[in-house]
Amino acid sequence: MSMTTGTHALVRRTHEERVLAALRAGGAMSRGELSKRVGLSRTTLSEITASLLQRGAIVVADTDAATRSGSGRPAERLALDPASGQFLGVDFGHRRVHVVIADAAHEIIAAGLEPYHNDAPWSVRLGVAFDLIDGLCTARGVHLGALQAVGIGVPGPYTGAGARGPRVTWRPQAAPEGVDLAFAGRFGTPVVADNNTRLAALAEAIYEPEPVSDLVYVRLSDGVGGGLVVAGRLVTGARGYAGELGHVTANPGGSQCRCGKRGCLETVASVPAILAGCRARGVDVENLDDLAAAVTKGDPVADAVLRDVGTTLGRVLGAAAMALNPNEVVIGGEVVHVAPVIVEQAAAALRYELYSIPAEKPLVVRRSQLRDSDGALGALAAIFHQSPLLAGYPEPAESDDGATQQRSTW
Amino acid sequence: MSMTTGTHALVRRTHEERVLAALRAGGAMSRGELSKRVGLSRTTLSEITASLLQRGAIVVADTDAATRSGSGRPAERLALDPASGQFLGVDFGHRRVHVVIADAAHEIIAAGLEPYHNDAPWSVRLGVAFDLIDGLCTARGVHLGALQAVGIGVPGPYTGAGARGPRVTWRPQAAPEGVDLAFAGRFGTPVVADNNTRLAALAEAIYEPEPVSDLVYVRLSDGVGGGLVVAGRLVTGARGYAGELGHVTANPGGSQCRCGKRGCLETVASVPAILAGCRARGVDVENLDDLAAAVTKGDPVADAVLRDVGTTLGRVLGAAAMALNPNEVVIGGEVVHVAPVIVEQAAAALRYELYSIPAEKPLVVRRSQLRDSDGALGALAAIFHQSPLLAGYPEPAESDDGATQQRSTW
Repeated sequence: MSMTTGTHALVRRTHEERVLAALRAGGAMSRGELSKRVGLSRTTLSEITASLLQRGAIVVADTDAATRSGSGRPAERLALDPASGQFLGVDFGHRRVHVVIADAAHEIIAAGLEPYHNDAPWSVRLGVAFDLIDGLCTARGVHLGALQAVGIGVPGPYTGAGARGPRVTWRPQAAPEGVDLAFAGRFGTPVVADNNTRLAALAEAIYEPEPVSDLVYVRLSDGVGGGLVVAGRLVTGARGYAGELGHVTANPGGSQCRCGKRGCLETVASVPAILAGCRARGVDVENLDDLAAAVTKGDPVADAVLRDVGTTLGRVLGAAAMALNPNEVVIGGEVVHVAPVIVEQAAAALRYELYSIPAEKPLVVRRSQLRDSDGALGALAAIFHQSPLLAGYPEPAESDDGATQQRSTW
Repeated sequence: MSMTTGTHALVRRTHEERVLAALRAGGAMSRGELSKRVGLSRTTLSEITASLLQRGAIVVADTDAATRSGSGRPAERLALDPASGQFLGVDFGHRRVHVVIADAAHEIIAAGLEPYHNDAPWSVRLGVAFDLIDGLCTARGVHLGALQAVGIGVPGPYTGAGARGPRVTWRPQAAPEGVDLAFAGRFGTPVVADNNTRLAALAEAIYEPEPVSDLVYVRLSDGVGGGLVVAGRLVTGARGYAGELGHVTANPGGSQCRCGKRGCLETVASVPAILAGCRARGVDVENLDDLAAAVTKGDPVADAVLRDVGTTLGRVLGAAAMALNPNEVVIGGEVVHVAPVIVEQAAAALRYELYSIPAEKPLVVRRSQLRDSDGALGALAAIFHQSPLLAGYPEPAESDDGATQQRSTW
């Protein structure tokens, strides 16, 4: 359909929405960056931003003087009015909940942590989280009157009640079952909930200078989990189980896994498996601190065990990378910060596996930027990344007058 | 943004476009199916379709009497006016080009095949294809005046000139380099071009009674290729190489592969590898006909070789399925129609690998519906599937007056 006359106002409003959406998703940026992101000419963009600035919808946040490379006059960076909206990220771990609140410019304005017992039921966990949020708001003088969305990370697979995860709750008045619905009921905003490892994968993809479209993420922890970003979207799979790299058979006929199979990646590359592997070869390590000490000392047996782990990990990641052709493979978990040789060795195995794929830009293999304590940032990532993430979800129900509810502004 | 007054006409036009897009993508369907697809109430939908019928934009194609399950009055099936547009699917093989032309109701109205030499340059192949298309149109009285789009499958990886494949050519006036641009230049329509194995994956996902959202496809042929559909979209990967399952290491330390590695799946499960594996164990097979004879005869050695192939294939597919959690795994290539035991055995290996994934609906593992000769249907699938497939592609360039070209009607 080519544009016909009379649609000028509509085109202009569409442009404004694209500019606002770009600032909402990307935080503060210069007119040049904005122009690139939204695909408008500099001239058209300047008209749009002038009008938005005049109406107070956006503000000049700062200039890019601090980060500017090269010479030239620093450019103004535009942002949504920081007071115009907040985002709430919540990460439920096995033993604590972590909360961060960001403003419309994506700056963290409050953050906190509260423990609960490993066995605490979800009713208790929710209460702890709500109290923590209330306390943070009081202490920091934050008023959540313009809350835009809530992102929630939970441990374990999260498939929702028959829904394809991550679930998106559009109607807070629906029956309050499930974590997402509890938050939707309390805050009256859209909620995105998903497994926290999967959200970490998304966070690794978007918290980069240039967002990464295709990324394979694995996290080595008490277990081994993972997440995939394909074409800029988090992959859930048909039933919400995508990214379960920990239970790919890495070593047929290997050790018994808690999942019931043998030789899963988790039996080789989880933290307990790595420590047990060291002990089996005489390296006396009980925990990650001991492992860090052995690595610092340059213990050659520990080094050999860690390299074997990296090679096995790299083979499993290699199969995933051959299928998915990602830009990046990211390995997370505190253990890879303690023992970076795991990442080096996995990278070598990956390089071999991908030998036959021509690459003018080779695959990046790196350890995670976000640490295990940064889970709530992953939950924030889900809502910052909203529009592409949510684009595949069902449209909200039609209201009675035949108009559809729009979701374009959040 | 909630709807404000004055937007009623816009809402209505949006609804009409959604109905037309659903019929364009899905072919003829009843009002009930349409209502489900576009998310409009039956009442609103009936108003929209009444208006479209009255204006001749759609027609009553038939009723669902033939396919209706249960009792009740047969429902009318609505479709775009078949004369209102055509779709052209072209599959370039190593030795022939295959063309199909479908009408707006997705019925095939012409199909043909023309050989060329294995060494023929692309200029020759293009000429053969254009002549074939012209000949088909003349012979069948087809006039391509309302051609909507062209889908093109090509052998080998297709990454386009630096673009993320499949390439979408929006501007036929651009320099005529590349197969897609040659077609765009000749027909003046959008063109989608991609590797034909990848398009076959998409075709397997969408030519089902209920389109499959997540599918892993592998084809056993002279080589082994594959394709992935994730969340209803064909996966290209960061550089256009997604789906290269043939070069996952299946057998570390195995036979030399043409890619330079050892033990790739292709060294085990390509047709030449399967035949060589049979011969190495004394089964005298030179080609698929010989293999078919051995299978028919119940040759136990051939059966053992084929089961080993299936197990290895199942392990590689299992790793991909663990990462992606698909609804279906589809195995294509003539050899699996000759030797279905490969699929049975791969399914058994997959079931074990996915043991730890809870599944109320188990993974479907099946052989391909489309045969190797159906490549042009894969190319058609790409264009029928247009809107979700193309949604992730860059917006067309802005025109000088600040309006953007719309792509909503194709």
